[in-house]
Amino acid sequence: MGGYTLSKVVKIALDAMGGDSAPASVVDGADIAKAKSPHIEILFVGDENIIRPLLGKSKFFKNAEVFHTDQAVSSSDTASQAVRRGRDSSMWLAIAEVAANRADAIVSAGNTGALMAMAKLQLRTMPGITRPAIAGFFPTEHNPMCMLDLGANLECDEENLVQFALMGQAFYLSLMGKVNPSVGLLNVGEEEQKGHEYLRLAAQELSNPDLGVNYCGFVEGSDLVKGSVDIVVTDGFSGNVALKTAEGVAGLFALMLRRTFRASLLSRVGYLFARNALKLFRARMDPRRYNGAVFLGLNGIAVKSHGGTDALGFSNAIDVAANLVDHGFIPDVSAAIKKADLIRDKRKICNE
Amino acid sequence: MGGYTLSKVVKIALDAMGGDSAPASVVDGADIAKAKSPHIEILFVGDENIIRPLLGKSKFFKNAEVFHTDQAVSSSDTASQAVRRGRDSSMWLAIAEVAANRADAIVSAGNTGALMAMAKLQLRTMPGITRPAIAGFFPTEHNPMCMLDLGANLECDEENLVQFALMGQAFYLSLMGKVNPSVGLLNVGEEEQKGHEYLRLAAQELSNPDLGVNYCGFVEGSDLVKGSVDIVVTDGFSGNVALKTAEGVAGLFALMLRRTFRASLLSRVGYLFARNALKLFRARMDPRRYNGAVFLGLNGIAVKSHGGTDALGFSNAIDVAANLVDHGFIPDVSAAIKKADLIRDKRKICNE
Repeated sequence: MGGYTLSKVVKIALDAMGGDSAPASVVDGADIAKAKSPHIEILFVGDENIIRPLLGKSKFFKNAEVFHTDQAVSSSDTASQAVRRGRDSSMWLAIAEVAANRADAIVSAGNTGALMAMAKLQLRTMPGITRPAIAGFFPTEHNPMCMLDLGANLECDEENLVQFALMGQAFYLSLMGKVNPSVGLLNVGEEEQKGHEYLRLAAQELSNPDLGVNYCGFVEGSDLVKGSVDIVVTDGFSGNVALKTAEGVAGLFALMLRRTFRASLLSRVGYLFARNALKLFRARMDPRRYNGAVFLGLNGIAVKSHGGTDALGFSNAIDVAANLVDHGFIPDVSAAIKKADLIRDKRKICNE
Repeated sequence: MGGYTLSKVVKIALDAMGGDSAPASVVDGADIAKAKSPHIEILFVGDENIIRPLLGKSKFFKNAEVFHTDQAVSSSDTASQAVRRGRDSSMWLAIAEVAANRADAIVSAGNTGALMAMAKLQLRTMPGITRPAIAGFFPTEHNPMCMLDLGANLECDEENLVQFALMGQAFYLSLMGKVNPSVGLLNVGEEEQKGHEYLRLAAQELSNPDLGVNYCGFVEGSDLVKGSVDIVVTDGFSGNVALKTAEGVAGLFALMLRRTFRASLLSRVGYLFARNALKLFRARMDPRRYNGAVFLGLNGIAVKSHGGTDALGFSNAIDVAANLVDHGFIPDVSAAIKKADLIRDKRKICNE
């Protein structure tokens, strides 16, 4: 799959039918992304009868390419149903463009399970990777933190976790530009004797200096937003629970705060005075800024947008895809995994 | 162990040496709790040389009983170290008072692992319970939600989860006064085919109407603060991750909000106008209101306070203990577990 490094034009295939407010949020999101990154080209995959009128009102995509299909994956489909029946769906066909090297990345706000299953089938897992993972960013007190896996693998072993750390490192470098980002393993305490057996084994492997991972030990749920490490590695069950709990608590706070400012005339006046500062606060905590989870470990770039996001959130997912293409993410991951495999093989030979 | 129902006086043994600001927060917390619940009596267990001067300044406990010991469990001790070397510690001796029926409940803000291990050894697990669990409350949009297990059992099977649901139900009734509270199982999606095998099996058992559990299906991390169910059942690893993630995000929000109001002169003025409404907001989200996690499934009431809390938070943990004693919590749990065992036995006989 060519064209990942320093390509002048980045072509992104969008599943225009995935997401709660698709295709409007997809078309508008593409406009926002193009204004920011003029070097992107978009292929819209979906129902041309609905998409074309929306493109008429678009700033950059009046004459954009639309790959027509009237089929779409439903949010209620299971992954296996989607794979069996959805070969003509906008999601499948958008991924196929990447598999056939006609696009550099695919972005969808549709059904996560279906997207993962279809992406695995068409893009295939990278040589040496046992399981792909879903990675995403969280806001913290300091720099954004990357967590993986967010739900692709409910049960993991130490080998999976070590690979997640390596993939996370390459991912963080691509998107945040930080060399040698720090890695923590999510656990129920920082002490070494705590937690599952496979966590202790993963900790041991990650501490091997030959691996080249800047491993900083166990972290807890409360560390996630402190920014104490750049990358948090965990199994997909805990990662999904942590992600959704964080989203829920953030949403509750925002709701209660809105109610607080509406509670009385005085508090409304207070809001008016503090409005500008509160806008900055909201902007910093805005979940749309962190939208765009990436499937790591595949031979191609697939980005999952939150299904409930709007055009601004969707544009961020497109940005994530474009940045990964720009920074040669796929060859980076591939090199890291090869190195880890060599270390593992060497150790096996030494142990024999 | 007598005296749990309708006892006029509730005697609570406090590990006076556990917690970051013990014993001051313990003595002051006891004062706050006594003002609210005059029927409680306190036994302070710990170093009399430090505690006695503090009691001199106390409102209610000037002449309180102090059970002297100069030993204390350290926060860095492992559970097994604490159990081996800590038989003269304030934690062990406070629990011993409950085991010997000289106190109705024990509260400690010390090392969680040590407290669980010592409580299990001395109070013993209830007949029929395979594993005790830690339960606590979360603020939600509506009523507080109870979650268990918060970290006692990192791996669970379907039988554990069913017992957690039954214990949680009796716990919720005792503290919130709600008959037939609703129960959800934490999972990575609401669809029935998702998640671990033992979650599906637990869901099946909980759906049996003979069990008498108001089971409402799977819930996700984002549901925790929505208050969509009263009780959320999960394994101790995920429960601990969810609890600590929620605490972390809530803390980040509070920090960012403080910074927001300090950002400019205008925002400071805004704060002054909205101050009263913001105070209500803070009070509602105050983690101290939810302090006091309970070890369910033991033959006695043991409450774990957050180690970092202050006197107000500690007083809440004492309230939780007193309420459980007042409401005859232990016999309620015992009856629920017996019923579940009968159903299980009946089914086994039918299957044979």
